[in-house]
Parts: sequence; C-alpha cells; structure tokens
Amino acid sequence: MSDFRLEHDSLGPVKVPKTALWGAQTERSRQNFQTGGLMPYPVITALLQIKKAAAQVNAELGELSAAKATLITKTVDQLLSADHRADFPLVVYQTGSGTQTNMNVNEVIVHYAAQLQSELVLSPNDDVNHAQSSNDAFPAAMMIAAYQACQQLLPILQELITALQHKQKDFAEVVKIGRTHLQDATPLTVGQEISGWISALSHDQQYLEQNMPTLLELPLGGTAVGTGLNAPVGFDQKIIAKLAATYEIPFVVAPNKFQGLAHHSGLNLIHGCLRTLASDLLKIGNDIRFLASGPRAGYGEFTIPANEPGSSIMPGKVNPTQVEALTMVVARVMGNDTTLNFAASQGNFEMNVYKPIIIATFLESTDLLTSSMQSFTEKLVQGLQINAPRMQELVENSLMLVTALTPHIGYEQSAKIAQAAQQQGLTLRAAALASGAVSAADFARWVDLAAMTHPHH
Amino acid sequence: MSDFRLEHDSLGPVKVPKTALWGAQTERSRQNFQTGGLMPYPVITALLQIKKAAAQVNAELGELSAAKATLITKTVDQLLSADHRADFPLVVYQTGSGTQTNMNVNEVIVHYAAQLQSELVLSPNDDVNHAQSSNDAFPAAMMIAAYQACQQLLPILQELITALQHKQKDFAEVVKIGRTHLQDATPLTVGQEISGWISALSHDQQYLEQNMPTLLELPLGGTAVGTGLNAPVGFDQKIIAKLAATYEIPFVVAPNKFQGLAHHSGLNLIHGCLRTLASDLLKIGNDIRFLASGPRAGYGEFTIPANEPGSSIMPGKVNPTQVEALTMVVARVMGNDTTLNFAASQGNFEMNVYKPIIIATFLESTDLLTSSMQSFTEKLVQGLQINAPRMQELVENSLMLVTALTPHIGYEQSAKIAQAAQQQGLTLRAAALASGAVSAADFARWVDLAAMTHPHH
Amino acid sequence: MSDFRLEHDSLGPVKVPKTALWGAQTERSRQNFQTGGLMPYPVITALLQIKKAAAQVNAELGELSAAKATLITKTVDQLLSADHRADFPLVVYQTGSGTQTNMNVNEVIVHYAAQLQSELVLSPNDDVNHAQSSNDAFPAAMMIAAYQACQQLLPILQELITALQHKQKDFAEVVKIGRTHLQDATPLTVGQEISGWISALSHDQQYLEQNMPTLLELPLGGTAVGTGLNAPVGFDQKIIAKLAATYEIPFVVAPNKFQGLAHHSGLNLIHGCLRTLASDLLKIGNDIRFLASGPRAGYGEFTIPANEPGSSIMPGKVNPTQVEALTMVVARVMGNDTTLNFAASQGNFEMNVYKPIIIATFLESTDLLTSSMQSFTEKLVQGLQINAPRMQELVENSLMLVTALTPHIGYEQSAKIAQAAQQQGLTLRAAALASGAVSAADFARWVDLAAMTHPHH
Amino acid sequence: MSDFRLEHDSLGPVKVPKTALWGAQTERSRQNFQTGGLMPYPVITALLQIKKAAAQVNAELGELSAAKATLITKTVDQLLSADHRADFPLVVYQTGSGTQTNMNVNEVIVHYAAQLQSELVLSPNDDVNHAQSSNDAFPAAMMIAAYQACQQLLPILQELITALQHKQKDFAEVVKIGRTHLQDATPLTVGQEISGWISALSHDQQYLEQNMPTLLELPLGGTAVGTGLNAPVGFDQKIIAKLAATYEIPFVVAPNKFQGLAHHSGLNLIHGCLRTLASDLLKIGNDIRFLASGPRAGYGEFTIPANEPGSSIMPGKVNPTQVEALTMVVARVMGNDTTLNFAASQGNFEMNVYKPIIIATFLESTDLLTSSMQSFTEKLVQGLQINAPRMQELVENSLMLVTALTPHIGYEQSAKIAQAAQQQGLTLRAAALASGAVSAADFARWVDLAAMTHPHH
Repeated sequence: MSDFRLEHDSLGPVKVPKTALWGAQTERSRQNFQTGGLMPYPVITALLQIKKAAAQVNAELGELSAAKATLITKTVDQLLSADHRADFPLVVYQTGSGTQTNMNVNEVIVHYAAQLQSELVLSPNDDVNHAQSSNDAFPAAMMIAAYQACQQLLPILQELITALQHKQKDFAEVVKIGRTHLQDATPLTVGQEISGWISALSHDQQYLEQNMPTLLELPLGGTAVGTGLNAPVGFDQKIIAKLAATYEIPFVVAPNKFQGLAHHSGLNLIHGCLRTLASDLLKIGNDIRFLASGPRAGYGEFTIPANEPGSSIMPGKVNPTQVEALTMVVARVMGNDTTLNFAASQGNFEMNVYKPIIIATFLESTDLLTSSMQSFTEKLVQGLQINAPRMQELVENSLMLVTALTPHIGYEQSAKIAQAAQQQGLTLRAAALASGAVSAADFARWVDLAAMTHPHH
Repeated sequence: MSDFRLEHDSLGPVKVPKTALWGAQTERSRQNFQTGGLMPYPVITALLQIKKAAAQVNAELGELSAAKATLITKTVDQLLSADHRADFPLVVYQTGSGTQTNMNVNEVIVHYAAQLQSELVLSPNDDVNHAQSSNDAFPAAMMIAAYQACQQLLPILQELITALQHKQKDFAEVVKIGRTHLQDATPLTVGQEISGWISALSHDQQYLEQNMPTLLELPLGGTAVGTGLNAPVGFDQKIIAKLAATYEIPFVVAPNKFQGLAHHSGLNLIHGCLRTLASDLLKIGNDIRFLASGPRAGYGEFTIPANEPGSSIMPGKVNPTQVEALTMVVARVMGNDTTLNFAASQGNFEMNVYKPIIIATFLESTDLLTSSMQSFTEKLVQGLQINAPRMQELVENSLMLVTALTPHIGYEQSAKIAQAAQQQGLTLRAAALASGAVSAADFARWVDLAAMTHPHH
Repeated sequence: MSDFRLEHDSLGPVKVPKTALWGAQTERSRQNFQTGGLMPYPVITALLQIKKAAAQVNAELGELSAAKATLITKTVDQLLSADHRADFPLVVYQTGSGTQTNMNVNEVIVHYAAQLQSELVLSPNDDVNHAQSSNDAFPAAMMIAAYQACQQLLPILQELITALQHKQKDFAEVVKIGRTHLQDATPLTVGQEISGWISALSHDQQYLEQNMPTLLELPLGGTAVGTGLNAPVGFDQKIIAKLAATYEIPFVVAPNKFQGLAHHSGLNLIHGCLRTLASDLLKIGNDIRFLASGPRAGYGEFTIPANEPGSSIMPGKVNPTQVEALTMVVARVMGNDTTLNFAASQGNFEMNVYKPIIIATFLESTDLLTSSMQSFTEKLVQGLQINAPRMQELVENSLMLVTALTPHIGYEQSAKIAQAAQQQGLTLRAAALASGAVSAADFARWVDLAAMTHPHH
Repeated sequence: MSDFRLEHDSLGPVKVPKTALWGAQTERSRQNFQTGGLMPYPVITALLQIKKAAAQVNAELGELSAAKATLITKTVDQLLSADHRADFPLVVYQTGSGTQTNMNVNEVIVHYAAQLQSELVLSPNDDVNHAQSSNDAFPAAMMIAAYQACQQLLPILQELITALQHKQKDFAEVVKIGRTHLQDATPLTVGQEISGWISALSHDQQYLEQNMPTLLELPLGGTAVGTGLNAPVGFDQKIIAKLAATYEIPFVVAPNKFQGLAHHSGLNLIHGCLRTLASDLLKIGNDIRFLASGPRAGYGEFTIPANEPGSSIMPGKVNPTQVEALTMVVARVMGNDTTLNFAASQGNFEMNVYKPIIIATFLESTDLLTSSMQSFTEKLVQGLQINAPRMQELVENSLMLVTALTPHIGYEQSAKIAQAAQQQGLTLRAAALASGAVSAADFARWVDLAAMTHPHH
C-alpha cells in the first residue's frame, strides 16, 4: 500500500500510484479499461491548450481568480514543453465521450500545479474544467487534432506530387504503349501517364483543402448538451479567439453546438476525402509495381530502387516494398473509413459516444498516409527510372497503332488489318500493306507515334 | 430464324431480333451478360446527348457531313422524346468500360435514323462515335448523370430541412430533458434538439454543394487513352460548350483526360458526401423513433403519424415505418460506399474497368436517398407532434437539474445531492433542501428550466 | 373512382385498384413506400408455402376449419403454379419487419380464394395469418429463400471448379515462371498455378456447405416476440416438418425464437462466406486478365475467347469482359457485406427492423455470384488457352532459376550471380559459368525446370 | 560511428546499432519503414517455433548438422523464455510478404547463437531459413498466431455467456414488456429476453469453433512459390508434426500450398465469424444501455454498476461506459473486416503481399474482442440488476396485452379496443370492458401475464 496514495472523487476513495500526476477518475478508468492503444497524444495536447485558454477566459470574465488562471497557464505551458505521455495513461476504448481523458487532463493539471504552488488548491471540476464539459471540450480537441493532422499531411502530399512532376518532365516525350482493360491500346508518353496520377492527387489535395474548414468549428461553450449551461456569456467567442491565436488556425464557434456534440459530420466528410486519396494511391501504386514488374517476365517498363534483398530464398530478387507498405496503408484507411462512418452514424439524442474511436481512427489514417507517402516519395518515386528500350520495343510492336488508320480507311477495314496481323504474327505495317488498303507512304505518314500522343500539336 | 435478322460487326455475323433497334455488338453483350439490373437510363440519355453534340461539333469542324449531323440530331431528339428503355437492354455487369452500352447507343441511333431517312447510311463507329471512344464518352455520361442526380437530391434535402425548421419553430420553447450516454442530462428545448438535426443536414447540404463542381469535368476529347487521338482540334471545348448549353450546367473540359478515364476520384468524393448525409440521417431517424417509442413503455415524447397497421398479430400497433425504410436506405448507401470506393481504387494504367458498377451504385444511392427523404418528410416529419405533458413530467423529475447548482455549491456537493435523491427516491429539490446546502429560495432561483436551456438570454 | 374498390383495415377504409388481388394494408404500403426494387420473389413464394403449411397444421390442431385449410391450400397451390409477381407490388424499403409483405400475401390469398369459393370468407389476420406473426413468418421466409439461393449457387461453383480442373489437367506439365511481389520468381507449372485457384474455390465451397445448416433454423411458432403467444402447442414442430417435407430441406425449429426474430447472425455468417468466395474470385479473375494481358505488350501467357469487339475506337481489340463483369459483381458483394453486417447489428430488443434489406442484399449477392460465375465459366474459363512458347521464353530467361543453385553454392554467392546477370544482360547460365562457382555440367543438372516444379518427384 | 557495427547482406554493407541482435536486412527495413505499429509479437514467437522445428527436421533429414540444430534449438528456447520484443523492431507496414520480419527472426537467432557458441557460425539464410522461404514461413506463422488468438477468445466468450446465463436464471420469471419496432409489444420474461442474447452468442461461438480448423492448414514446405523447391522430401509432414506437438494443436500440411501463399481465405472466413460476433455484441450492448437508460427519463428497467463518475459537469451521472468501450471495439472490428477482406482479395499470381496487415488486423480484432468482452462481463454483466417495479408498471400499462384477446374476439375487434384505450387514456382492461365484447371474467382469464410469456406451459 505504501506505493499508493488515496484519492477520492464523487464515487468515493481510490488508490492511486503514489507518484502519478493523475487522480481518482483517471485511475478508475485505467483500471476499468485496459484494451487497445493509448488516446492519441495530439488529443491530449489540444485539451491542455483548451484548459489554458479556458482559464484565461474565465479569469477575464470574472469566473476564476487571476491567481488560479496564472497557475493553470504556467502548468499547461510546462506540461506542453516536455513529453508527458506517461501521465496520460488512458486508452481509446473507454467511455465514449472521452470524459475520463478530459478528467485525466484536469487532474494532471491540478497535481502538477500543486507541485508548482502547493498553497493554491485547484479543483479539477470547478476550476480547471470551469465552463466546460467533456461533451464540448473533447470534440473540440478532436477537431483541433484532426485539423493539425491534415495540415501535416498536405505538404507531404505536395512533395509526392512534386516528385511525380519531376518524373513527368523527365519523361515527357518518351512514347510508350497505352493499356486499357490491361490490353494494348494506343500510345501515350510516360509524362502523360504520370500526369494522370498527378491530376488524381491534385484533385485529392484540392478536395482536402476545400473541405478542411469544416474542421474549424469548435463546439466549446456548449457544455453538457449544447445549451451552454454554466458557461458565462461570451465564453465561446473568447476561448475560440484565443485558440485561433495560439494555433494560428482560424477556428470558429460551431454554428450549432447541439450538432457539434451529437454528430461528427465534419470528421466523417474529411475522412471521405482521405479514403478518396487512399483509393487513388492504390491505383498509382499498382500501376508502378506492375510497370516495374519483371525484371524479365513482366512489363519491365520501370526500374525502381533496390532498397533491401527481396527474398529470403530467392537470391537477387528486388521487390516493390514501398508500394506494398503504401497499399497496406490504403487497406487500413479503407477499413478506418468503415469504422468512422459507422461510428458517426450511431449518435443518440444529445451525444455521440463513439468519440474516441472516431478521432483515433481519423488520426491513424492521417498519420499512416503522411508517413507512408513520405517514404514512398523518398525511397521509390524519386529513384524511379524508365527502361526506354523496352518501352520502344513494346509500342512499336503494338497492333493498336491501327487506330491511327481509322480516320482514313474506317473502323471495319482497320479491324481486319489488326486481326490479320495478330493471327499471322505480322507487324501492323506488314499487315496494313498486305491488305492493299494502305500504301507504305500513307502508313509512315499516318502512324506517327509522336503525333499519336500529341494529336493536337 | 424468321424472327431474326443478321447483323455483323468486326468479329462476324450475329443474329439479332428482327424488330430490335440495336445491332451486332449490343446483341453480343445481351447474350454474354445476363446478370443484374439494366444500365441506368440517365446514363443512356446522357450518351444520347453526347452523340448529338458530337455530331454537331464534327459537322462544324468539317469531320462529318451536315446531312449526317442533321440526321443524328433529329434521331436523338426523337429518341429522347419518348421512353426507349426497351431499346437499351444491356445490364450493368458487362464490360467494365461500358463499351457495349456506348455501342448500343450508337447502333440504336443508326437503326432509328434508317427508319427516318433510309438512304443516308450511318456507321455506328465512324459516324455516330466519331471523335469519341467509349473510354471518354462513357465516363462523361457518368458525370452528367451523377451531377443531375445530385441536382435532384438537393431540393428534396431542402424540403426535409424546411419541414424540420417548421417543427423547430413550433416547439422552440418546449423544454425537455437532454440525454447523453442515453442517461438523463441537463434540459434543452425541443427546438434546440431539432436545430442540431437541421445543422447536421445543412452541413451535409453544403458539403454536397461545395464539392459538386468536381463532377463538371468531362473527359470528352480524350478518346481511347486520354491523348485525344482521332479527335479534331477544338472538339473537346466545343462539345462541352454544347452540352453545357443543353443542360444549363457549367460543364468544363476535364483538366487532365488521363485522370478522367482511369480514376473516378470525383464520384468517389461525392459518394463520400452522400454517405456522410446517410450517416446523419440514421442518427436523426433513430432519435425520432426512440423519442416516439411507446406509446406507454417508451420515451413517449413524440407522436408520429399512423400510416398503416403495424402488426399482423398485435392489434392497434403503430410503427415508425418511414424511419425503417429510411434507415434501410442508409444501410444500402453504406454498402454502396464500400463498393464504389473499392471499384474506384481498382483502375489499371489508362483505364478503370469498374465504370458501370460505379455509376449504377452512385445513382442507386442518390435515387434511394432522394425518394426516401421525400417520403420521410411528407409522411412522417410534417406530421410529427410532441407529447408536451410527458416531456414536462420527465424533465421535472430529472436529477441532472443539479448541474445548475454547481456554480454555486461546487461539483462534489452537487453530486452528493443527486446521489441522495436517486438512492432515496426523492425529488432533486427535496434532496437539495435536505442537504442544508441550498435554501428553497436559492433552489427556485437557480433551477430555472427556461434559463437553463437559454443561459445566455 | 370507378377503377377502384374500397377495402378497409383496422385504420379505416382504403381505395384499392379494382382488379388488384391485394387489400387495404398492401395498398397503404404501396402508397407510402415507392423507393427501390421489389421484394424478391423467393421471399413471396416462401411466405406462400408457410401460409399453406400453417393452414394445414392449424386444421390438424383444431384451430382452423378443414374447409378453410383446404381452400388456403388450393389457393396457394394455384398461386405458386403461375407467375404472380404483379400481385406482390411492395418494395424492399418498407417497414423493417416485412409486415406489409406478409399482409400482402395474406390478402392475396384471401382475394384469390374468394374467386375460387366466394361463399367461404377468409380473414387475412385471423385465418391466413393464424398462429403467425410477420415477426416469425417473415424471418422464416428469409431463411428458406436464403438456403435455396445457396443451393442454387453451389452447383455453379462446382462447374467453375470442374472447368478449372480440366485446364489444370490439360496444362499439368507446362512449366512457367512464378511471380511473387509481381517479380519473377521460381518456376511452377500452369497446372500448379490453377490448382491454387481450385483450392481456394474448394475451400470456399466447403465453408458454405459446412455453415449452411445455420440457415435451417426457422423461428416459426415464436409469433410476435418469440414467446409463441397465440400459437397452439406443437404448431412449430408440425409446420416445420411440413415445410421440410415440401422443400426436401431439413429445416428445424429455431433453438431460440427470441434470437430468431432479433438477430440475423446466420445470414450474416453465410454472407461472410459469400464475400470470402467473392474475394477469391477477384484474385483469380485478376490473375487471368493479367496473364492474358497483351496481346503483345503484356504478360501474354493466356489467350481468352474474343466474345465481342473490345473497343468502339480501337479496331481488333479483345478485352477480358467476363472478368470485368465478374469483378464488378465482387465489388457489389463487398458492399452488400457492409450493408448486411451493418443491418444485422442494428436490432433492438425483440426485433431487428432491417429484415427486407438483409434478405434483398443476401439474395442479390447469391444471384449475382451464381450467374456471373456461370457466365465466366462458360464464356471464358472453358475457352481459356495458353501461349506455350511465350511461357517457355519467359521461364528460360528468368534469373530466379538461380534459387536452384543455393543448396549447392549458398544464398550469397547465388545472389551475386543473379545480380551480375541482370546488370550485364546475361543469361543466368552465362553468369553462373562466368562466376567460376558452377560448371556447365552442374548447371545443367541443378537447373532442371521440371525438377524445380516437382522437387519431390 | 562507434555506436554501430557493419553488417552486410546481398545488397552490400549496412550500419547496425552495435548492441542490436539483428542484422543487415532488419536494419534496412527498420530504416525504410517507420510507419505504424510493431509486427504483433505472436507472429514473432510463431516464427521462432518454426525456426526451431525446421532446424530439428533439417537435422533429421541430413540437411543440417546436429550441432547447428542443437544450437538453433537452444537459442530459440532462450529467446522464447524472456521478453525480446525490443529485438524485433520492424513494423507492420513493411514488405507485404513479411520477408524482413522473417529475416529479423533469422538474424536474431544467428546473433544470439553467436553469444552462446561463437565458434559455430550460422547463416541466417542457408541455416536458419533452410528449407523455408518467407513466403511459406510467414503465412504459417500467421495461421498459428490466429488460431491461438481464437483459442484465447473462446473461453472469454464462454464467460460472457455464463454470466448471462446466471442473469437469465435469476430473472427467469420476471415478466416485462416486449418491444418490436421500439413500440410496446406483447410481454416476455427477462430471462427469455436474455436467452435471445445467449443464443446469438452461442451461435457465434459455434461458428467460430466449427470453422477454426481452416486455420490449421500450414503451407510450410511450399517455400518460394508453393512447389517446395529446396525443401527436402518429407520436410512438410515432419515440421508440422513437430509444431502440432509443441503447440498441442492439430496442425496439418496445407492441402494446396499455392493457395496457402496466394490466398488467405481461411483468415478471411474466420474474421467473418468475428464480425458476426461483433455485430451481435452491438445489438446486446445497445439493448442493455437502452434498458438501463434513465435513471428517470429512460426505459429504466435495468441498473448497471456505477464504475466511474459519468460527467465532468453533471454531478451524480452514471454512464454505461463498459458498453461504450465494447461498441467502439465493434466499430473497429467492422472496419477491420473491410480491411482484411480487401487485403485478402488483392493477391496476384503466386503471392498475396498484404500479409502483415491481414494478420495485424486479425489479431487486433481478436485481442480487442477478448479483452473488451472480459471487461464487459466482469464490470457490467455480472453486476446487472433489474428494476422489477418499473418492469411491472410498464407491462401492466401496456396496450399490447390486447393480443391475448384476438384468439377469442378477432383481430379487428381487438384493434378497436386498443385504439380506444390509447385515445381515451384508459387501461386496456377498462377499454375492453367498455367495448362490451369482453367480460371482466374473460379479461382476467385471457390476459394472464405469466401465461402470455409461456403459452405452451
């Protein structure tokens, strides 16, 4: 027992590890919930910022003594300046409102403050949580953490786009065979192919940017059910102004706090943008690994960096491992999308009690996408090279160059030439000339690879 | 055999029903694919409009005779002026590019035109499909159909919002108990509760509106792989200007046609908006049916219209059937979200071959949401009534009014009062007075229901 | 008005189309719910069989007159002997218990019986629905329809397996290159590769067969909430015995009727088996279309039947359209899996009110899988051919044959040989001899393709 | 540099932390992949067991010296006897075959063995990995870990069932109102209601048990692509016999090793069982929290333990937090189901390269379900109590007792009585007597609550 101290809350006394900064409610939750990962730290830090801003606003509004506000401010600043992960031991799978994590933050502030200034006693509920409820503070912290995570993702996405743009430029005029339905189609340049990937990612980037403002809406000031009971007039505007200044992010008061507590439409929407990005990443990743397939029995158009020996049994094998990690991330984001949308749909009345899984899932997706895109960019895309002779060989052998004949001799006659070439193992040129419908000069003029890829130049 | 005629295409002859307006390729697909529902008609009509606009542009650019363009125009106008569903018999589960549906449209135009003007022979590929490929025409038709479907959904969503706004106003000052974690919480008004639903739906409405422009990007002019081979210079701008004028929708040339053929990020994003809407509808539907639960052993706060006898065995039962239909639609939209995102992720190289399932799924979601929201609005929301005495009884008995005491006597003392009331079966008032911490006058002043729901008035 | 007649139910009078066989409750639902597809007909026929069996059992137990039971029996037999789709006009998105579809069946029986024997008046509730509730009859009909659908799927799955077994045998000794991570790996035979597909499908077949018995549990006799109120003693055993005899399927009384009404674990489990099958079909379909990619710029190992011209713009193109339809079905089944599992999770208390979407989704999956597998088998697999020279060329050029050297010279030395061959563009043999570590005779003995694919022969 | 040593692999030299037990390949992967959680430790321990068993079999078959086999055995035994988590630092999002984790295990064994017996030099590839490939060893480890995880889940599921059975027995004869469509329905006992939950969980338990044998199929002996190249004859049978003995689990040689490497149907199927369980848990959890809703403005039929203060702002609030954690787990399992099924579908040719995410997701689901069910059982179900007076009040007020009248006076007449009672605010008895259709004596005899819940007693 000597390793413990007794704390109490409204349900009675609780034994807490002697040196823990947390109190009774944290300890109850720590005992009652032992499953899954820790509540993401960005949620904790956002709650700490909320506590600091609340203390200052409460003091301004005459709801809290200046001394207490100063102490809370100092405490939060110190807590934020070091790694206090160990003082926030609660897991994601706890109460669905994040109440105990909110209380964990309140309690840690109280105990840490007591070390700074033992004579000024703070109450976790009446002082640190003043004018707040977990029901508005926690979803506000979710939004803050989510917005920041998107801010971190965007430049990495831009790096990927930039790396692809370099490749697009490098290979702008290299002609290669197109493939539709996996079957040989008309030619395009490598730069054009890559431009399609860039366009997809740029769309995804724009989707995220144009929708992110929905995450700016913080329901602070709504307290328990959205009415704002026990929050002083003006609290919401003032605290959000402070947070906006601190973060340099233009947070706004949620236009409807009832919605802010009971629905999580904004996070759901933004995760929809993330899964759209993930979906495009899968397509791009698959293209790259198939185009790099081989080295001798695949498409063989691309060469990718050899980052590690590919096989424990097959010597000399090189595998597209960065793509594999990236596409496993995509699989996870797809699942997170199911989780988050399901969770967002399950609110009841004045509350949605799936808040921790919603934010944990959201942040897992942003973190995984951010770091796997970074790794994919640096360790694969930047080192991507093409196998130009292979590309030339494939495109020149292609029968689908026949498409260039159709404006001149029609679809049906063209089809007969292509079929004859394939059945007889001829080049398209040989079959075209043999058909009698095309002269050698016509063929040379009409089937011009560069012109086929840029018909409007 | 007398019921058939012989048609042929580049693979050879095909028996086609004698009176069918379609030709060889349609018939092959009709025989080869017999699973699932028909290709949605809005895709067919969009393709018809594309064919007409293409013919006109091709004539302007000197690629098609004026006579042929006029004939195609006349044909399409007639086809659009009546129900020709039966002439487009192909199913969704066909080739993944929609090629045979594109050819179905080409063939029907040719055969119908032959009835109008038999001496002017049209080729389905060289004339009607001129300067197009299924690969650009079909995704353009998908975008047109999807945009229109969203246009149809939005006013119905607005009707639902409007109906809720009427109820919000009607019940603006009726105080009721709030519920968080399904447990009694502090009070709010019915109007406030409904305002949360309205806010959620308004967010969803805005999400849709602000993202819909991504559907305006038509990849016409890209032809087979995106390069625009066989499309004349200027074709893309001109055809899209014509379609924009026809539809009075500001369509634009897709900024990157390679992306337009191989990725469906835009449809994926917008379905993400639809599922966010669906998710919010589930929450609202669940709230309504639970608040209307009873009549005697449930929450009993709401009364909903009795649209049909509820039970084949329990006489007099009334069930929330409109909610049930709506929430089954939600379940479907959630599944469609999985399907569509999966399908969008599976493109390869210059093509995504899940186009028919993508658009079929998208349109199923919009259609189901539109009509079920309409029915829900008209047959349930507009007839929604409250049970005011029940609401009053529940809120007055509530222990969570204790929250109004905490600014005055602190959280811990308040908790003791609430616990005593619950354990001893007392009213909160009785327990508060018994505690000695609150006088009767204080209680009356502090626990003021109207003030609790509008603390800042 | 002359086109209508007046019917009434416990809520009052309703105008019904004069010639309709249905009555008031059907008409109310027909007016109130106009979204989505019709309730699947197999659910209707199962309900008809339940009504017939119930009438007979009720007569045996003295609950219904012999004359009424005979009339109901005769009526049902006639209804089942022709296509009465038009008499069951209700849609899936109706009340979540299927109550109005159950009443539709009750009402049609009453009206049809009146045409057969007008002087014997039947009550839809008191006679046709006697000893039943929609709450037990509808889920029983779901289980019957689902079991039958699985019975129809299994032989088609077997046909696919059989077709693959023929190919496995045909190509049992054709050596080809293996591919892992899409990169060249050690060789195997075409027969071995196909055996993996067969094994996956056989596993899926077994999963379905060993789990299908869970669908045999019919909750008949549970009536409104599972207690069996108003059902006579012995009704459950007797009616299920009759249904088992009629269908020649060993149905059993659900071991717990409360679970039978409120949970749909069995349908959820079986759809899990269907999606596992779908997942394997995707892998197999993707393998086939990639191995058939080309004809000149792809893997080119397989040749598939040319069922239709592949492109509206590229003459002579042949696409893997059967795979495309099949994999779009897979995408749908994946979405249905989300829908069904979500719906199954949303029961409350004594009822799950997502029954129509659960069964509609289930039957859509079985129907789509059954018919697309059939088409895939007949129109693609049975016509699948290999390109043996291409396979030989690819495997002989492969560097991964180096793996056969590792037992003799070790992994590191082998890796150096493979790397040298790749960097210098040599054959593996040349590089091996150049390394000095392998003699020509050793190489010939160790790198034996047939032995590498069957090392244990 | 002094903190590092130089290791090398077939790609060249790599700096490795001086004290690390791992080697070059592990270090490359550690540098190249830094996203996401660690590879689950049960996969590591299964690989260690495979290495030990392989060494012994290789020695028996004359492929490895007895001294090396003994050293590997001793090394693995020591590694398994302590926590070596830190020596296996690789993350889930790495190469999709788990190759570097397999090499991590090989390398750690080599370095640890060198500490035990420095003069006997082991090769990670030629000795420790002898007769194996990552391609067969890693999926075998997946199956072993998955089977064990299910073994751990089953007794916890049984504990939950047992706890519910105690409650079922305790409340076997307490009559309560039934609810269908959330509307008052005919009565049942609390024991009957709980029996439905038990039945659902028992079904799920049986599903898992009857399908788990599919996880017994280990593809060891297949090596690189399934042919077994470089594995001696008999290796597969012998190693699996050893593993079966070690684990006391009846593992078998995978009937088709090609399927074992390229498909993960078995894990997909079993996760389908897990999500079916999760779906049922959601329904049960929701029932419990709604039945415990209140304390004064909800259903109020159940009382659940007060484990922690429920609100940071509302004193005295008690929330169903165990249900909330459990249902968040359900949301996660639903997402994992999407991830796993997607990943399982994406194999190509001889390999599925989503192995790490498949097993990580699977084990996350089993772990979360196991521990949240345990917590739910101990901290909620075992302490669940009923509010018998409340139940009695609700059932006695119910109008749906009218159903007991229908066998006597018919559905229509009964409906009129129920409607009259509701409209006039009467008890059912009063309305029945007022109707003139039922005498007081009849009413007493017919409306017998106990008889209604057990009509067949």
